[in-house]
Amino acid sequence: MIHGGDTVGYEIKYGRQAIDFSANISPLGLPEGVKKAIINSLKNADKYPDPLSRKLREKLSIYFGIDEKYILCGNGAADLIFALVFALKPKKALLTAPTFAEYEEALNAVGADIEKYILKKENNFLIDESFIDSINEETDIVFICQPNNPTGQLTDKVILNNIIEKCHNLGVFLVIDECFVDFLDNENEVTVIDKIQEYKNIFILKAFTKLYAMAGIRLGYGFCTDLKLIENINKCRQPWSVSYLAQEAGIAALNEKEYVKNLKELIKNERVFLKEELKALGIEVFGSNGNFIFFYCSEENFDEKLREKGIMIRDCSNYTGLSKGYYRIAVKTHGENEIIINAVKEILNK
Amino acid sequence: MIHGGDTVGYEIKYGRQAIDFSANISPLGLPEGVKKAIINSLKNADKYPDPLSRKLREKLSIYFGIDEKYILCGNGAADLIFALVFALKPKKALLTAPTFAEYEEALNAVGADIEKYILKKENNFLIDESFIDSINEETDIVFICQPNNPTGQLTDKVILNNIIEKCHNLGVFLVIDECFVDFLDNENEVTVIDKIQEYKNIFILKAFTKLYAMAGIRLGYGFCTDLKLIENINKCRQPWSVSYLAQEAGIAALNEKEYVKNLKELIKNERVFLKEELKALGIEVFGSNGNFIFFYCSEENFDEKLREKGIMIRDCSNYTGLSKGYYRIAVKTHGENEIIINAVKEILNK
Repeated sequence: MIHGGDTVGYEIKYGRQAIDFSANISPLGLPEGVKKAIINSLKNADKYPDPLSRKLREKLSIYFGIDEKYILCGNGAADLIFALVFALKPKKALLTAPTFAEYEEALNAVGADIEKYILKKENNFLIDESFIDSINEETDIVFICQPNNPTGQLTDKVILNNIIEKCHNLGVFLVIDECFVDFLDNENEVTVIDKIQEYKNIFILKAFTKLYAMAGIRLGYGFCTDLKLIENINKCRQPWSVSYLAQEAGIAALNEKEYVKNLKELIKNERVFLKEELKALGIEVFGSNGNFIFFYCSEENFDEKLREKGIMIRDCSNYTGLSKGYYRIAVKTHGENEIIINAVKEILNK
Repeated sequence: MIHGGDTVGYEIKYGRQAIDFSANISPLGLPEGVKKAIINSLKNADKYPDPLSRKLREKLSIYFGIDEKYILCGNGAADLIFALVFALKPKKALLTAPTFAEYEEALNAVGADIEKYILKKENNFLIDESFIDSINEETDIVFICQPNNPTGQLTDKVILNNIIEKCHNLGVFLVIDECFVDFLDNENEVTVIDKIQEYKNIFILKAFTKLYAMAGIRLGYGFCTDLKLIENINKCRQPWSVSYLAQEAGIAALNEKEYVKNLKELIKNERVFLKEELKALGIEVFGSNGNFIFFYCSEENFDEKLREKGIMIRDCSNYTGLSKGYYRIAVKTHGENEIIINAVKEILNK
């Protein structure tokens, strides 16, 4: 299992449910409005979903002020990653290591040669100017996860703009995965969505998954102004990849302004709480931009010990560039966060 | 639009809903048990779906008496078609024309050379022994839709077995799409599921879509005993392609024995009713094995005239091998079937 969130696996092994800190999902659960929209959608669930997700794209268009024709919906953001890679069939790709595993999985499926820019601990796992030198004439595609999963680190905007310029100048396709930008207070400063109006070689990836706790429903989307590419992406996947339930759920989710406001407030406070508590226990915390915290803990079998206590966290040792001892936890509700902190205290005898 | 079922497009154009005969879906609507299962699943919809669809595959395993490890679930059968083609990357494919469009779409996405075996009107659009001659050393993959969509014709079992043997002998991969077999009374005679135990080069495709009216939910599955291929298919798609809602819906659907019994009885009777009524109106009916009827009607703009009357049917003129005048309609409830027959009578002045 290369991802967090394997609650079924936990249940099979332990015969009970765990508190899942291993998947980065809103701890507030599915918004009531989304729940109602899905129940309401069941009367039409016998029909094929609209292959063009027209009503959802119209709503996203209004929400983001981006022309519908530049918006693409998918069966989760991961669906779009695979379809995009199948459409572009890149020969050479540049990724950071560590980063979200599905970029590499999709690239492997088309046999791309992958260069990995290793994020270093001594550099706080940050992308620096040297990343730009790794982009060259041979590079076909670059993936930047902003903020990066699992490190929780943001790439400096000046550096990101330089990456964008370099990719543009060399004709390199650039995917910027902004799935976790929604959790930031300064999201408008961080996002580079506006760049798509200027550059056709950029794909901005986003999802409903994390922000609206819709991981089980599957809904992602993306922005790109290269209409020919959008056409090719759609040729590399079935017409009905986005279920009718997901389309209706997405339309309803975009009305959930209060939910998002409360969620962002919660994440903001709890992120600080968790960071401070972990640090006080001698744990080295790195990034926390997003709804998750990335840290190092030398305690042996740390994640296993937490699992025994009914808590799942993400062991990050299987990411390229990381080793045993690196973990990621989602920021959850205060009560849940207290439970994990208390469990960590017990394990570390503190 | 290369498929039926574009109810959203109809609504946008006409400002009202149509009776949709253009998509081959159970007319009994979503089974109550499936509806309940989805509503019940919402409390866990914030979690990522099980990438392995373990509970659903276990249930399918019991239902079909096939080992779980040979079962693969997908975001509709079309998801599996694309992932299978991406995994096999065939250079040369053999299809019938006409047939379900997504085989060709998927094959085009990997740049496969496609040979089309034209089904002829004078042969009632049936596959005959000559199809076997079209399979040769250069063929990498063959798709057989059984019964075929849109013709509604069944390939003779002796011929099908010869196709299976020839593919086996030449190392050709064979996909047999049995999505519509469920609607037949003699499904146990028609299905070749048992062949997978003998041959690794066969993939049997099936779906919940049509039988349980779950087109908007998206759930398909397949059987194959080539475990290496199953692994490769999973490498060519995201881990979470099957939503949690779809997994729970599928588990519940397999309990709907009464629904299926009633549905099959309805389809059996209404298939005869529609066929006889169409024939009585001078319309040439070809196949009807499945839950749909394939026919020819020379009336100009026949489908357009039906649309004006609030009825959508599938104009089949954009299928290779067919021309203007060929149409497909789903078998629906008696009341709905009477509506379309009366509309046809009005259009034909009979």
